[in-house]
Amino acid sequence: MPESVSNARVGVVMGSRSDWETLQHAAATLQQLGIAHEVQVVSAHRTPDLLFTYAEQAVARGLAVIIAGAGGAAHLPGMLAAKTPLPVLGVPVQSQALNGMDSLLSIVQMPAGVPVGTLAIGRAGAINAALLAASILALHDAALGRRLADFRRAQTDAVLAAPDPRKAMS
Amino acid sequence: MPESVSNARVGVVMGSRSDWETLQHAAATLQQLGIAHEVQVVSAHRTPDLLFTYAEQAVARGLAVIIAGAGGAAHLPGMLAAKTPLPVLGVPVQSQALNGMDSLLSIVQMPAGVPVGTLAIGRAGAINAALLAASILALHDAALGRRLADFRRAQTDAVLAAPDPRKAMS
Amino acid sequence: MPESVSNARVGVVMGSRSDWETLQHAAATLQQLGIAHEVQVVSAHRTPDLLFTYAEQAVARGLAVIIAGAGGAAHLPGMLAAKTPLPVLGVPVQSQALNGMDSLLSIVQMPAGVPVGTLAIGRAGAINAALLAASILALHDAALGRRLADFRRAQTDAVLAAPDPRKAMS
Amino acid sequence: MPESVSNARVGVVMGSRSDWETLQHAAATLQQLGIAHEVQVVSAHRTPDLLFTYAEQAVARGLAVIIAGAGGAAHLPGMLAAKTPLPVLGVPVQSQALNGMDSLLSIVQMPAGVPVGTLAIGRAGAINAALLAASILALHDAALGRRLADFRRAQTDAVLAAPDPRKAMS
Amino acid sequence: MPESVSNARVGVVMGSRSDWETLQHAAATLQQLGIAHEVQVVSAHRTPDLLFTYAEQAVARGLAVIIAGAGGAAHLPGMLAAKTPLPVLGVPVQSQALNGMDSLLSIVQMPAGVPVGTLAIGRAGAINAALLAASILALHDAALGRRLADFRRAQTDAVLAAPDPRKAMS
Amino acid sequence: MPESVSNARVGVVMGSRSDWETLQHAAATLQQLGIAHEVQVVSAHRTPDLLFTYAEQAVARGLAVIIAGAGGAAHLPGMLAAKTPLPVLGVPVQSQALNGMDSLLSIVQMPAGVPVGTLAIGRAGAINAALLAASILALHDAALGRRLADFRRAQTDAVLAAPDPRKAMS
Amino acid sequence: MPESVSNARVGVVMGSRSDWETLQHAAATLQQLGIAHEVQVVSAHRTPDLLFTYAEQAVARGLAVIIAGAGGAAHLPGMLAAKTPLPVLGVPVQSQALNGMDSLLSIVQMPAGVPVGTLAIGRAGAINAALLAASILALHDAALGRRLADFRRAQTDAVLAAPDPRKAMS
Amino acid sequence: MPESVSNARVGVVMGSRSDWETLQHAAATLQQLGIAHEVQVVSAHRTPDLLFTYAEQAVARGLAVIIAGAGGAAHLPGMLAAKTPLPVLGVPVQSQALNGMDSLLSIVQMPAGVPVGTLAIGRAGAINAALLAASILALHDAALGRRLADFRRAQTDAVLAAPDPRKAMS
Repeated sequence: MPESVSNARVGVVMGSRSDWETLQHAAATLQQLGIAHEVQVVSAHRTPDLLFTYAEQAVARGLAVIIAGAGGAAHLPGMLAAKTPLPVLGVPVQSQALNGMDSLLSIVQMPAGVPVGTLAIGRAGAINAALLAASILALHDAALGRRLADFRRAQTDAVLAAPDPRKAMS
Repeated sequence: MPESVSNARVGVVMGSRSDWETLQHAAATLQQLGIAHEVQVVSAHRTPDLLFTYAEQAVARGLAVIIAGAGGAAHLPGMLAAKTPLPVLGVPVQSQALNGMDSLLSIVQMPAGVPVGTLAIGRAGAINAALLAASILALHDAALGRRLADFRRAQTDAVLAAPDPRKAMS
Repeated sequence: MPESVSNARVGVVMGSRSDWETLQHAAATLQQLGIAHEVQVVSAHRTPDLLFTYAEQAVARGLAVIIAGAGGAAHLPGMLAAKTPLPVLGVPVQSQALNGMDSLLSIVQMPAGVPVGTLAIGRAGAINAALLAASILALHDAALGRRLADFRRAQTDAVLAAPDPRKAMS
Repeated sequence: MPESVSNARVGVVMGSRSDWETLQHAAATLQQLGIAHEVQVVSAHRTPDLLFTYAEQAVARGLAVIIAGAGGAAHLPGMLAAKTPLPVLGVPVQSQALNGMDSLLSIVQMPAGVPVGTLAIGRAGAINAALLAASILALHDAALGRRLADFRRAQTDAVLAAPDPRKAMS
Repeated sequence: MPESVSNARVGVVMGSRSDWETLQHAAATLQQLGIAHEVQVVSAHRTPDLLFTYAEQAVARGLAVIIAGAGGAAHLPGMLAAKTPLPVLGVPVQSQALNGMDSLLSIVQMPAGVPVGTLAIGRAGAINAALLAASILALHDAALGRRLADFRRAQTDAVLAAPDPRKAMS
Repeated sequence: MPESVSNARVGVVMGSRSDWETLQHAAATLQQLGIAHEVQVVSAHRTPDLLFTYAEQAVARGLAVIIAGAGGAAHLPGMLAAKTPLPVLGVPVQSQALNGMDSLLSIVQMPAGVPVGTLAIGRAGAINAALLAASILALHDAALGRRLADFRRAQTDAVLAAPDPRKAMS
Repeated sequence: MPESVSNARVGVVMGSRSDWETLQHAAATLQQLGIAHEVQVVSAHRTPDLLFTYAEQAVARGLAVIIAGAGGAAHLPGMLAAKTPLPVLGVPVQSQALNGMDSLLSIVQMPAGVPVGTLAIGRAGAINAALLAASILALHDAALGRRLADFRRAQTDAVLAAPDPRKAMS
Repeated sequence: MPESVSNARVGVVMGSRSDWETLQHAAATLQQLGIAHEVQVVSAHRTPDLLFTYAEQAVARGLAVIIAGAGGAAHLPGMLAAKTPLPVLGVPVQSQALNGMDSLLSIVQMPAGVPVGTLAIGRAGAINAALLAASILALHDAALGRRLADFRRAQTDAVLAAPDPRKAMS
């Protein structure tokens, strides 16, 4: 188990090191929002026992939300969800041949009984997984709620401040 | 605003009355788990002002999670998410021509900044939206957590009790 | 609201600054046809209130047609159409993972009651949105009709003047 | 040429008689809005000369908008647009094998230079083609504009009047 | 563990009872070829521990090949393959919304390191999983090899005996 | 080899008896045009030797064109084309799960060097394969050319004679 | 009309100059087989009248086969086929956003009555269109038949002469 | 027939030299596992007779498994399977236009009666074909079974040894 963050509220896991290119955006967004988190490679297919252990210990270790990213036949989010009562958010990583359509369907089309809240393919999905985790945590963390509101207001203001796409951003 | 449930924690909204055939499974699952909820038709395209009002008042009205289902160019979940800080879960309704692939992509492919936790197309997605909402609420509701654990244990037991598909279920 | 063009007949809006790479071709074509227009970033998800205001004021501000481009879960055209009686033309921007198929379906698959006239994915769609807007305006603007006819004749002549693809264009 | 309606403002054409099942919804919506229109079968592949004649005479015959529906390799809308300066709106008919995805791509993916404003696959697209035509005509027909506003208000009110999907509509 | 067949060489497992409609064709083909086999429902998501136990005990229990069928986000074949050194053959079950395209991609697009030999969607895939299992077992079972050869010769002869599709089969 | 038609100019073959439901429309169209033809089931996978023999003898037996229909992993048209210098026309049969998209891609995406002229999925493709065969034979058969011209004129006249889709055909 | 080749037997036309990158492979293959041909840009949408004239004059000008390539909403092959009794072969050009899937469906999914023999997307399809045209012409041109047989034998020999992919080709 | 490896247990064949870029990963994995194998280009369409000979002689030549890779209309694996009783494993090569979706469907969607065990598109599929072949051979080769177990343990350990994606691999 990852040693780094003893008080992590969100676990960010991914099926392979190459997925970090995508999932780093989840971690960065959590960081920006001041949410304690941990990151770890957990491969559904190469380390299935680790996957089970990770999921089984998640509650006891204090996690509240798991963000899981994977590509291709992306089984990591769904198998984590099968083994933990925590909300699991899935990020489809853009795959080589099929551009992430395989990742998306492997994650989102879960059968009735075991849900994975699925976000968009790639970087946008990774950022949004962090934001969705934040909105979940903010239900009982008013300070985080204010930081999240600030984050969203800032991105609204950024659009409003530069309405003309022909001009360089100020 | 719906009058029926004054203490609703989950709002179940859908783009048209015909989506009820799908979303009723979300409501039934919430009911089964003892989660106070409300249901309402809110059309992104025919009642956009209602959509905004619903989203703007959701926090004040005591909602914690919104489940939104829609089909085709399914804008309801994403637009609600744009207007509320609450977690929004999207259910793609199976559409007539494209079997819900249009609904799925319209809901899940949100740009960075505004997340929708998307579930599977159709009935399975509706049930799972309710279960994901339950897992979110259970983070701070131990009794619900036990009911959810029971629910999941029961579905596990149902599989274990009838392992032979050739025999009628006992 | 954009200050630049007081007599704009066509509003060209887009979901993010990065969409300008595509939508600039709409603006350039309108320019070429001498049609007064304005351009602005209006994000359905990051600035939903601006979206509503833009749509609500469009008639009063003198617009006759709105061209809206967006990518991924592209809700901008459909939500504008929900809030204005003006014709709305949608341009699917080519997205990163799914090449604009998500943008296309999110824009074109509108439910009965609120139409978006959808053009091709990317640059061709942006140019054609301008041309379709021109054909709409030309119904009551004979001078524009002549400019549009000239435009189309010129592109016909360009093909006829260089029938042999093996030779450099003269 | 169709004799029936001498003052038709909108021409509704379709590639085969079987497309009438879809396009009748365009005609019915035009009827409901009090817009004079004509309907005719014009097959791009079986009656190409008629297609050209129809497009060439459309302006002189007083048409302002053409609605064209077709399925499969749906060339009718695009070829009409190649031969008339009028706005052409395309309705992809749901096809037997590919559910209208072929129809949609054949209509919407027009090259730069000749636009077709494309609506959703099937019945919804047919209705919306009529509504988009109405919004175009209403730019210079205030009475029609009021009828269109009434139409849209009525569909908004219908949703608002029956917010609970569990109850039968009143 | 299934008690029925103590000497089973092939395990036929499926994600839910409803998959039996497809997987029965695998069992029937194994039966026809005289291959001892067992059938069992093992749900990756509802009974993940059973999945692991099944895979871990497969070698010791004498299985040589596992046939696994599942639909939607079909994780069963891949997770079994992650936990057993035996060859795993995957059968994509035709799903409700996406016709088995989700099942297919979830099964076949396994990352390097853990293979699943995937067959066609639905009944044909179930029959062929049995035949591929037979061809694997026949590498060291000459009698089975002869039965398999007879099976294939019979299906060849059936085509040759009725070459004219206009006539009823004799 | 089929005994029935000694002077057949077109061979209509199909991968299984069930494909006759589609390919009968090719045979009927050839019949209507007075083109001598033969029909036979030739399975690429169950009777590969027959496939080779059929292709190798086609020229000597007097065939000029081969029409081959198959579904799913449809290898029949391409393998025939690999073994005969005659023009081979492929008809993708609508498949159970994927609606013929698999059939279409398996037939049309031939590598450089061995062509298959591919027609539409299903009945329309079968009819059109016959018409394309007719147009090929008509290059050196003026009488057939006249019959083909009559056929096409008749289908044009049928459209022209019933321009109003609201009226029953006369 | 193109002046260059008075005795052309095959017309190679394409929707825009940019398609020459693909269609040049058809021309080069025809050249290699000694088949007189002509090449010309004919845009279905920008030069519809030229399209009709080209098709109407094709027989009188001595053409026997037309090869037509186009991308996106590719109407050129089908509209040529609607206007000439000659065999028309379609080459889907790989499009920018959808990789030629739109081109393919727009060309191959012709309705019953007007066939286009469709080849693979891109370069392979262009080469194969030439080879299919050659096989058609060779039905009545024994010398061409021998050249085509030589061509095919050469490509077979090329594979046989270099069976080991690890070695550089001799 | 390839002379190089007299005791090859696995034949690795591919439709063209360019497929070696993908299939080399199958060969390298077999090499790593100490499995005698041979590699050869066998084109279904350019060398169909070689394909038949290869399949017919495979058993006598001592092969136990055939790995076949091809792209586009990929008929090689299925036709080999039609002609040999040996297990055939198919590797869809990523194609130019459709990213291997055509290859995948052409290989996996085999009709009932003739199976191809299909792996993922591209490099992952090539590696996994070798691993699946190894698991088949290991059923009767304990030493290979140990090498395969070592291989899998090593890839598990590699993940476990570098759990933090933010750090360079040790």
